[in-house]
Amino acid sequence: MAIIGSKEYFKGIEDIKFEGKESKNPLAYKYYSPNEMVLGKKMSEHLKFAVAYWHSFGNTGIDPFGTKTKNFPWNNHEDPIQRAKDKMDAAFEFISKLGLEYFCFHDFDLIEEGNTLFASEHRLRSITEYGQQKRKGTPIKILWGTANLFSHPRYMNGAATNPDFNVVAYASAQVKNAIDVTIALEGENYVFWGGREGYTSLLNTKMKKEIDHLAQFLHNAKDYARSQGFKGHFFIEPKPAEPSKHQYDFDTATVIGFLNQYELTDDFRINIEVNHATLAGHTFQHELQVAADANMLGSIDANRGDYQNGWDTDQFPTNIGEIVEAMLVIVQNGGIQGGGVNFDAKTRRNSTDLADIFYSHIGGIDTFSRALLITEKVINHTDFLNIINKRYSSFDTEKGKAFEKGTLDLSDLHQIAHDNGELKQSSGKQELLENIINDCI
Amino acid sequence: MAIIGSKEYFKGIEDIKFEGKESKNPLAYKYYSPNEMVLGKKMSEHLKFAVAYWHSFGNTGIDPFGTKTKNFPWNNHEDPIQRAKDKMDAAFEFISKLGLEYFCFHDFDLIEEGNTLFASEHRLRSITEYGQQKRKGTPIKILWGTANLFSHPRYMNGAATNPDFNVVAYASAQVKNAIDVTIALEGENYVFWGGREGYTSLLNTKMKKEIDHLAQFLHNAKDYARSQGFKGHFFIEPKPAEPSKHQYDFDTATVIGFLNQYELTDDFRINIEVNHATLAGHTFQHELQVAADANMLGSIDANRGDYQNGWDTDQFPTNIGEIVEAMLVIVQNGGIQGGGVNFDAKTRRNSTDLADIFYSHIGGIDTFSRALLITEKVINHTDFLNIINKRYSSFDTEKGKAFEKGTLDLSDLHQIAHDNGELKQSSGKQELLENIINDCI
Amino acid sequence: MAIIGSKEYFKGIEDIKFEGKESKNPLAYKYYSPNEMVLGKKMSEHLKFAVAYWHSFGNTGIDPFGTKTKNFPWNNHEDPIQRAKDKMDAAFEFISKLGLEYFCFHDFDLIEEGNTLFASEHRLRSITEYGQQKRKGTPIKILWGTANLFSHPRYMNGAATNPDFNVVAYASAQVKNAIDVTIALEGENYVFWGGREGYTSLLNTKMKKEIDHLAQFLHNAKDYARSQGFKGHFFIEPKPAEPSKHQYDFDTATVIGFLNQYELTDDFRINIEVNHATLAGHTFQHELQVAADANMLGSIDANRGDYQNGWDTDQFPTNIGEIVEAMLVIVQNGGIQGGGVNFDAKTRRNSTDLADIFYSHIGGIDTFSRALLITEKVINHTDFLNIINKRYSSFDTEKGKAFEKGTLDLSDLHQIAHDNGELKQSSGKQELLENIINDCI
Amino acid sequence: MAIIGSKEYFKGIEDIKFEGKESKNPLAYKYYSPNEMVLGKKMSEHLKFAVAYWHSFGNTGIDPFGTKTKNFPWNNHEDPIQRAKDKMDAAFEFISKLGLEYFCFHDFDLIEEGNTLFASEHRLRSITEYGQQKRKGTPIKILWGTANLFSHPRYMNGAATNPDFNVVAYASAQVKNAIDVTIALEGENYVFWGGREGYTSLLNTKMKKEIDHLAQFLHNAKDYARSQGFKGHFFIEPKPAEPSKHQYDFDTATVIGFLNQYELTDDFRINIEVNHATLAGHTFQHELQVAADANMLGSIDANRGDYQNGWDTDQFPTNIGEIVEAMLVIVQNGGIQGGGVNFDAKTRRNSTDLADIFYSHIGGIDTFSRALLITEKVINHTDFLNIINKRYSSFDTEKGKAFEKGTLDLSDLHQIAHDNGELKQSSGKQELLENIINDCI
Repeated sequence: MAIIGSKEYFKGIEDIKFEGKESKNPLAYKYYSPNEMVLGKKMSEHLKFAVAYWHSFGNTGIDPFGTKTKNFPWNNHEDPIQRAKDKMDAAFEFISKLGLEYFCFHDFDLIEEGNTLFASEHRLRSITEYGQQKRKGTPIKILWGTANLFSHPRYMNGAATNPDFNVVAYASAQVKNAIDVTIALEGENYVFWGGREGYTSLLNTKMKKEIDHLAQFLHNAKDYARSQGFKGHFFIEPKPAEPSKHQYDFDTATVIGFLNQYELTDDFRINIEVNHATLAGHTFQHELQVAADANMLGSIDANRGDYQNGWDTDQFPTNIGEIVEAMLVIVQNGGIQGGGVNFDAKTRRNSTDLADIFYSHIGGIDTFSRALLITEKVINHTDFLNIINKRYSSFDTEKGKAFEKGTLDLSDLHQIAHDNGELKQSSGKQELLENIINDCI
Repeated sequence: MAIIGSKEYFKGIEDIKFEGKESKNPLAYKYYSPNEMVLGKKMSEHLKFAVAYWHSFGNTGIDPFGTKTKNFPWNNHEDPIQRAKDKMDAAFEFISKLGLEYFCFHDFDLIEEGNTLFASEHRLRSITEYGQQKRKGTPIKILWGTANLFSHPRYMNGAATNPDFNVVAYASAQVKNAIDVTIALEGENYVFWGGREGYTSLLNTKMKKEIDHLAQFLHNAKDYARSQGFKGHFFIEPKPAEPSKHQYDFDTATVIGFLNQYELTDDFRINIEVNHATLAGHTFQHELQVAADANMLGSIDANRGDYQNGWDTDQFPTNIGEIVEAMLVIVQNGGIQGGGVNFDAKTRRNSTDLADIFYSHIGGIDTFSRALLITEKVINHTDFLNIINKRYSSFDTEKGKAFEKGTLDLSDLHQIAHDNGELKQSSGKQELLENIINDCI
Repeated sequence: MAIIGSKEYFKGIEDIKFEGKESKNPLAYKYYSPNEMVLGKKMSEHLKFAVAYWHSFGNTGIDPFGTKTKNFPWNNHEDPIQRAKDKMDAAFEFISKLGLEYFCFHDFDLIEEGNTLFASEHRLRSITEYGQQKRKGTPIKILWGTANLFSHPRYMNGAATNPDFNVVAYASAQVKNAIDVTIALEGENYVFWGGREGYTSLLNTKMKKEIDHLAQFLHNAKDYARSQGFKGHFFIEPKPAEPSKHQYDFDTATVIGFLNQYELTDDFRINIEVNHATLAGHTFQHELQVAADANMLGSIDANRGDYQNGWDTDQFPTNIGEIVEAMLVIVQNGGIQGGGVNFDAKTRRNSTDLADIFYSHIGGIDTFSRALLITEKVINHTDFLNIINKRYSSFDTEKGKAFEKGTLDLSDLHQIAHDNGELKQSSGKQELLENIINDCI
Repeated sequence: MAIIGSKEYFKGIEDIKFEGKESKNPLAYKYYSPNEMVLGKKMSEHLKFAVAYWHSFGNTGIDPFGTKTKNFPWNNHEDPIQRAKDKMDAAFEFISKLGLEYFCFHDFDLIEEGNTLFASEHRLRSITEYGQQKRKGTPIKILWGTANLFSHPRYMNGAATNPDFNVVAYASAQVKNAIDVTIALEGENYVFWGGREGYTSLLNTKMKKEIDHLAQFLHNAKDYARSQGFKGHFFIEPKPAEPSKHQYDFDTATVIGFLNQYELTDDFRINIEVNHATLAGHTFQHELQVAADANMLGSIDANRGDYQNGWDTDQFPTNIGEIVEAMLVIVQNGGIQGGGVNFDAKTRRNSTDLADIFYSHIGGIDTFSRALLITEKVINHTDFLNIINKRYSSFDTEKGKAFEKGTLDLSDLHQIAHDNGELKQSSGKQELLENIINDCI
């Protein structure tokens, strides 16, 4: 049921409904049927889709070579507080028309930053109150909140990792405020993405000092939030580079190592973005697997990169094969902890119709939903799991188990090798498995 | 003093001497003067150069599109044991003519693998004895030994991480033998590079199980070596991919996380290869800094990649700027622990003259030596260190120190930010620092 | 109908049949139904699938880090001529079991090179005669032949572009022989892929001289073939690099420029490989479009790269989305000229079962067939073409046409701009188009 | 002699002088001595350095993740015309303090675009008149002018290649005006960089139609400029991608093919940017060589990319080795035609001191100057040229010459190969050549 404010922004677009795969209606779901049961849960429970406030309502099409192309009608009011309310009206209308329940935000997505810290705090209070009112009686929730610690020039040398202590203090203040807003809006989780937490050049950087500061900063933030009663997860979102030459949260393995070293694993989980994974030289499913194996898979930023560009293109996910392989990892590892599937994705700079924001989300939602359905088919209706289990069956033998327990030493193994003689080859069967997946698409 | 065996292989090439930078002799050092004191140590102590047995005496020029181009005269004898001795004669002649003291090897670089494990062990014993004799009365030492767990087809699905326990056992036997050889030849360290320890496709891979096996395998190897009296370091050499799609020892941060998780940090250090660093999306200096900050910098594999190819080209290091930035990290972090500078580099496939092996090593040795001299100049004769120290000076104030100690909480920092008001910008001065470096070259 | 020689090599594998998409038989086609009419032609006419002799019968799994893993049963005979005949028996059996009609070869895929040019010529004559006999009464044809001018060490500095004239002469002799074989076996086309026609370093290279030589070489080859009655197309297969640092036939645009400059466009067309396209920083469909726009699209080497490796992985095509976008280009541009769809692809090194070669081809054939069916749906049953045609409709107006004809000069256009005032934006509708494609998959 | 306007913008910075390589003054040249003779010409004749108006006076530090960091004092006046004059004052002061003579500009670098075409034309006339006055009695010249056809939202779907004819007309008008300004300011050349001339997706693109339009557009522009008496060169500046997914002017070879096809080679030359070359998968020297071999090398955009990012970082050139290899190509091919060395490079976003703009230019100027001096040394004082000439000497023999003339056919060459027998190998000597270069640095 569309939640329309004082003005309808997406006129002519009705609630998006499931119409099935034969439908030719571009404004309908072909695969996403929220209440359909798949692998023991509702589709909407597997896939807690969230809309990204910054892209969908804030991205005006600026790129390094051009100015804004999108004149959103909710961005016109002269008064910044009213402008923020208009934007929130548009957001609630959009999310409800899509039939979704979640959004994610940075502090200054909700409302533009003021000229002073005081002014910003005043603005944040205003929009928080408005948000509290808007949410009443609606199913709309916040998947996670965060603070933008990368856009303002004060953060040009980093936020928590700035060489200037006073910038670190400023960033701390901003995080305190963002946590307060997240709690006030009953946000379920809180995210850290360290866009400027890294370096441009090692020549002017003391890396160890900066990373120690980052850990202290996260401890401070976590302690404060817990003291205010926040029960949700904290997420770190890895990215290898951009805008920094090197970001400290390079990839999932790096972040897990960091969280372990600084004793942050009780409270923090990983938020994995597809495009960040691929920029780090990994597949999306690899990053998911690394996080899941550490029991640290917290949330997903769903999008798609261009494998031939070296930057974050944040396109909506449309690559069915890629998302199937990802869902296979997620489903086999018991899902994600606390988070959801946030569309950290934007329409192209030249997709300037408001309807394009709908098309893009519909495409992304259907891609994930379809991938979930395919995953169910692969797991329950093919030989897929048998093939992989059989592949590792030698570790179910007595000696294989003994190795895993650590009761065979190098000399024992040396003797086993001698006893065995040369071994027979065992095909990895990758082509067969790929065909099985494709046949289920 | 050249150590020449029954036959001189590099005829016409005399001992390579330091002649200074004005020399036009292509078979002389322009910068490497082993006994020259730089930053408090002999140049040869800063830079323990080692020759890589596999490239310099074993690489015959095969590539994925062509057969061998190099017919090394030490590879002609019919008997594999005599062939191995000839090769070792060539190695000792070459290393001594360069005036170096170290080499590194894989088990089956020293001698070709036999048809059975027994046969291989017999061969290894033969060449080990020959090596023990050859070394007597010479300064020639082994920087590290290792086992080749990637070339034989039995390892096509991995060695320690093979889904078949019996392959894991075979790999264990091979490592036991390689450790025995390394100890017998008084090798100073032992290396693990996991070329096949990774996966081709997650579709047929249980990653967590495989990584657990890898850790068990390393524990077994370490325990055995210690039981045999080995005192050296173990090194892990990270590489992100190739031949695997994904190698588990992706980069330094990943490996450090792994070593911490599996309690291997007392015995293991990192061996960083330039080309592996760049394939992982890092600079060489980044990887060095990560290892040094964790007190884990063990050794270096010196070479150079092609930034425009996606594979390991293993070219000799000639990029002065890159090596200067690396030496700055090494020198400022107190050097490397136990290891040296191993030229894991090969002449091009079409560099088929024996003299080319000399030219390439001379170029690499001079590049590192020159970089060390430049580093001394940057550190002692420019404003470089002052600029970076001043950049972080706010953490020497009372509040800055308190933040580092963790005695300021988020609310305290929020108050400091309010008290400060907006902050003034501070240039990162990267261009100035880059000019300072270039002016020292 | 399987063509089995003196021995059946692929025992237990029957002829592969079309069973439709509900089939669970891994050794059946789900989409490839050769006689089915699609867009006015038989599926098998759209898609002239060919098997690559070198990969399917010759690739033993060697990679830069490991030795061969595949012991093909047709590679065992001691006599090289009998070995070549066995291999050809295996090839005919395999191709016929797949129900295909074409294969492609290099001279020394058919039979191993001899120790002298005379010996090689003798061998080639033997296998050519055997091939002529084998083909009798069968539908099996040669899509194209070529000469391997990259594997032998004599070509380490190039073949046609070698700095040594005598190597150029040798390469010429080899091409003469390969053309003779191709003609004798009624090959339909002849290919040039210049693996070593490029450079490793500009420092030792006279690029212009080498490219002039390449053009002369192609003229010589073409003139000879025509003099012998050859009527087919010549194809150039672009690739940007590997094994060379830079290959002269970098991409389709570069090759077309070269063919124009040296007046070779009457006889030469482009053979586009998916993985070569992506290595050049292009999409496959881009390269197809460039060739089609120049009326130069001759043939396809079907495979798939790994976007995160920098080398030619030659995996079988399984990416449905990628091939749909390619088929859209091909179908809209009237197909390809003379060539077909050659699977220049190999099973993974660890796919060591003979059945894996079947699985991989079935997967590739079904991917292309399915893409063709999807393309038909997109073109005939969606709004796809209307959207794009409408986008360019302003060039159907009087002024738009005048611009295209060149009858408006800069001042006229300046005046039109003044008359128009500021223009209204027009969304590119990329997200909508992407959804249309995905909905047809 | 510094040309200072009504206000001195770079206070405290005097004219930058040559002080030689022992100088420790960061605001002095260590290598650039404009009147020094090198290889028969003044250093300043080899290297016509130009300052890029857009970066040095217009780049405020915006990046995709952050707002402006640089508050240039010449950007403060309320009136856009006065603001443009202030900026020009700053430019003349800066260029003259560096002791340079050239700058390059886009139309709307000189002055901000107006709200209508009329308003923009009025503004352009104002600043053009101011520029004409400023130049009087100074050595300051314009290397080239161009029009910004990529920043305004009207160009989001392309300029000359826009699917909407009316946008093409607008772009034509803008180019007419930019040509008029360039002529009025006696600009020596005119450049086309097609940032939006390409596509985002082939799904909505008629590539051939767009490229035809581009050619027509260039003909129109060229004809107009010639009709107005413009004698300079037109330059095309290749770039493979960004902001477009694919730019039509992908690389030098592609552009040369295009210019040939559309008969534009009499008037157009290539302007090669280092970072664009590397983004295309080429080295800078490769692109220079391709252009030089076609007699089309027109100008250079000097900067440096980050090989590990996939976007245009436009850093100042500091990589000595890279520029030496480039200067070797330039010098050996008789220099560049008409253009110069334009620093299309920016200080880092966090380099916010005005002095940083000086440091960066000094670093770039010294890098090129030093590379020129090294090139002289390599050519005149080493064995470099002999080695490469000897490598090709077989083409100076009778048969080699006959091949080049085309008087040997394939059968003749076949006979020569038979007569020769197997050939002896010839090392490419790349390592030796690399050492020669490094020893000259």
